[in-house]
Amino acid sequence: MLNKHILTSSTQRLSQLNRQLSTSITKMAPTPTSSSSPLKNFDYLVIGGGSGGVASARRAAKYGAKVLLIEAKLNKLGGTCVNVGCVPKKVMWYAADLAHKKHDLYPYKLSKEPQSTQWGDFDWAGFKSKRDAYVHRLNGIYENNLKREKVDYVFGFAQFVNESGDVEVTLTGDQKLPFLEEAEAEADGKEYKKGDKLVFSGDKILLATGGTPIVPPKVEGSDLGITSDGFFALEHQPKRVAIVGAGYIGVELSGVFNALGTHVDFVIRGDTVLRSFDDIIQNTITDYYTDKLGINIIKQSGGVVKVEGEKNGTKKVTLGNGSVLEVDELVWTVGRKSLAGYGLDKVGVKLDSNLKVVVDKYQVTTNPKIFSLGDLIDEAELTPVAIAAGRRLSNRLFGGDQFKDDHLDYNNIPSAIFSHPEAGSIGLTSKQAIDKYGESNVKIYNSKFNAMYYAMMDSDKDKAPTAYRIVCAGPEEKVVGLHIVGDNSGEILQGFGVAIKMGATKKDFDNCVAIHPTSAEELVTMT
Amino acid sequence: MLNKHILTSSTQRLSQLNRQLSTSITKMAPTPTSSSSPLKNFDYLVIGGGSGGVASARRAAKYGAKVLLIEAKLNKLGGTCVNVGCVPKKVMWYAADLAHKKHDLYPYKLSKEPQSTQWGDFDWAGFKSKRDAYVHRLNGIYENNLKREKVDYVFGFAQFVNESGDVEVTLTGDQKLPFLEEAEAEADGKEYKKGDKLVFSGDKILLATGGTPIVPPKVEGSDLGITSDGFFALEHQPKRVAIVGAGYIGVELSGVFNALGTHVDFVIRGDTVLRSFDDIIQNTITDYYTDKLGINIIKQSGGVVKVEGEKNGTKKVTLGNGSVLEVDELVWTVGRKSLAGYGLDKVGVKLDSNLKVVVDKYQVTTNPKIFSLGDLIDEAELTPVAIAAGRRLSNRLFGGDQFKDDHLDYNNIPSAIFSHPEAGSIGLTSKQAIDKYGESNVKIYNSKFNAMYYAMMDSDKDKAPTAYRIVCAGPEEKVVGLHIVGDNSGEILQGFGVAIKMGATKKDFDNCVAIHPTSAEELVTMT
Repeated sequence: MLNKHILTSSTQRLSQLNRQLSTSITKMAPTPTSSSSPLKNFDYLVIGGGSGGVASARRAAKYGAKVLLIEAKLNKLGGTCVNVGCVPKKVMWYAADLAHKKHDLYPYKLSKEPQSTQWGDFDWAGFKSKRDAYVHRLNGIYENNLKREKVDYVFGFAQFVNESGDVEVTLTGDQKLPFLEEAEAEADGKEYKKGDKLVFSGDKILLATGGTPIVPPKVEGSDLGITSDGFFALEHQPKRVAIVGAGYIGVELSGVFNALGTHVDFVIRGDTVLRSFDDIIQNTITDYYTDKLGINIIKQSGGVVKVEGEKNGTKKVTLGNGSVLEVDELVWTVGRKSLAGYGLDKVGVKLDSNLKVVVDKYQVTTNPKIFSLGDLIDEAELTPVAIAAGRRLSNRLFGGDQFKDDHLDYNNIPSAIFSHPEAGSIGLTSKQAIDKYGESNVKIYNSKFNAMYYAMMDSDKDKAPTAYRIVCAGPEEKVVGLHIVGDNSGEILQGFGVAIKMGATKKDFDNCVAIHPTSAEELVTMT
Repeated sequence: MLNKHILTSSTQRLSQLNRQLSTSITKMAPTPTSSSSPLKNFDYLVIGGGSGGVASARRAAKYGAKVLLIEAKLNKLGGTCVNVGCVPKKVMWYAADLAHKKHDLYPYKLSKEPQSTQWGDFDWAGFKSKRDAYVHRLNGIYENNLKREKVDYVFGFAQFVNESGDVEVTLTGDQKLPFLEEAEAEADGKEYKKGDKLVFSGDKILLATGGTPIVPPKVEGSDLGITSDGFFALEHQPKRVAIVGAGYIGVELSGVFNALGTHVDFVIRGDTVLRSFDDIIQNTITDYYTDKLGINIIKQSGGVVKVEGEKNGTKKVTLGNGSVLEVDELVWTVGRKSLAGYGLDKVGVKLDSNLKVVVDKYQVTTNPKIFSLGDLIDEAELTPVAIAAGRRLSNRLFGGDQFKDDHLDYNNIPSAIFSHPEAGSIGLTSKQAIDKYGESNVKIYNSKFNAMYYAMMDSDKDKAPTAYRIVCAGPEEKVVGLHIVGDNSGEILQGFGVAIKMGATKKDFDNCVAIHPTSAEELVTMT
């Protein structure tokens, strides 16, 4: 929710935008055509104070550029990642992981009685308050970083107001703007009011407004459900939830709720979760969630067709397969959409059919002075990707000749899923590799085992799986994909990511002596 | 304790051995000169059923070689690693780690009351019995692997009996030896008795008898202390222990005892533990153990000068600095020595001044038909190193022409320390790098932070440190050392080990997009 003015996703609207584009580009002129002239011009206007925007703004300022960063959420720098994404998600994951560990105290002879986490055992409200305080600390750190590095910033909604790219900012709260004072350091400068509209211009402009979770518009009663944003706003732990959507966010939230004692109905359309990942990840997580964790995965559900609110506050959820769930909360994890609705048509910035901003490999949009990156473009929606793209872009724009070709290579980007256990992935799935290289040119190494930690468990039910797959191509067995499930997969994957990016072969993996006893050592000893 | 016949470590004994060597090599003859001829000849005689011996034996058998493996410990295949090393150590580490996690339940709002682990809370005896059962299962798996892969084996002490290299095995228990029957599968074959002596010969012989912990011979009353072997035999948790020796074993055992509620006096000679590691590891672990975990590290102790047994079973330990400790157990972690005392002088196998077997890069001893590896030679004493060396040796000896140059490169071997938190290391320390390349050619990147997990802790005391160091050399900033402390360091290091072995530069690290939120991502974003 960096910018609440969201485009209604329709092909009609898109064609309209792109039609405007073809004319507006030719009409672009160096002088403003808006009625109100800009208050101030900057070298770099950055719209969106999330991971990508902040990283790019700071890097530009490091090179001496005069930068203004515009963020819609009042005092909430950091974007999706810090406020309603990676950070609070990982903190909840830690709580969930620790709930599993609590269960392990008994087999590890650290508790005389079996331990579990039932609904009501976890102080959700108390923990949320600590989590919020942590996010708030991070917001402050982001703000201080901008101050220290002389990046100016303002909290408000941005809107392009003319073809020159002047940006009108409607303030989202009362605030002082020292950079508009004669002497910037002036402490008792003018206070601008919520709703005030200020216009700025920039020689270069970055669009980094990210995305927001989707609520299916066509499902009756869909507004009775919440999204991941709503999950992070929950003050109390629901006793029973339905999670709808098989992607990584659904998998992560299901895992957290389950570990903390909430009954989870996990509604998916196919037979496995994480359909965009390699099937070793799909199958291992689907089976473990179902058979061992006791998450009620409803396969071939036909989706949700209706949501009704009951008098007692619960929700009645009717599925396409005819079954009906009664839950305290329904959480939509059916995807995210980009936040591109702030007059991009005026400045000739083209969108694709998913309303993602079209860019070249240098992050340049169809308007040569406007750039974009992060969740707003059609690349992996990951914080480090936005940061890396943002830094490289500013290197190129403001860092001088040595960076004139700097840009992010979007291949072989590692990512982790904070499921229980974790999973991680780099490169091609086995299917993609076979499609690309042909079955006879692809060699796949697989290993499944229980990590040593689980040797002390009394029941197989308590043993989380480890499943590793290395996908190799060609006679030299170049590693083109790595897919892992098991404890610490996120941490394990990073170094292998470096090796794969360097062009590692299976032999390079094998050349490294194992570190014993770890799980990761399996990756350098697979046969 | 693979072979209990241990050489008394003296230069005199060594010179004697090497004198014999110079003559015995020339005297070697194809026919046995012993009084009792061998019962059977093998392609490959492997002395020592630990990590290296078993790995080499299995790999040789895979190529069709007829192999006999001789292990001294009855029914205890797996050597130090499985029985009194890596495996039970890591299992104890898991228990200790979980004791720390138990403490974290309260700040994570999973417990209404603060939790701790005091002496008496952990069911040491019950846990040891589970741990022993696990080790026993592994012994069985090792044995089954040998059976399945047609490696013959016998439990007994080996001794070279003549210059030809015939090996007399004194059985350490009653056992059947099907490979000596007319039809090997014969179930009710002859039972050989403990103490029986059988002689075998081999075209090639591997010495893989490993090492054993040292008890300082010159300290009065040193026998009242135990070693790591004795640690694993402890049936009950001591209330107060002294650990003597600053190496990784001392650090690991101190951490385990401390987490499980035992008071630890950790006696070291210098000011830091882990003196052979980079100082970022030395200092981070020493400070955390002292300031946060409450381990009583006694620096500049002057060592132990006397140990006395008290009537109540405790030990009075007098240090060189004059202070006196009273403890339930004293654990010596002052080093290990090789087990080389089984007639190696007879076969012309030369030892170095530490009584390690001298080998070339192909694991060949000074007798060309005898090979050695693992803890018996002067290389990193690590299970995966022994395994890798053993497999490569058998590839070279029995795998045909494609492996004719196969051998282990002992550079850049990663290793982990299972301290609390873990640490890991690859390559040169910063000091070694500066010595080698010169200060102006070395660039060191450092980062210290608290991992996100600890953001929820209410007290700084509960926050384990993370400290990373990348040591780079030359204008291309080749990574020549990586030293890390923090949760999951063992798992994190493996992939970076692959990259460093491939010759990674700092730029290669930076080229990989980060995985967020992890600790490992710091390693690809350090500036």
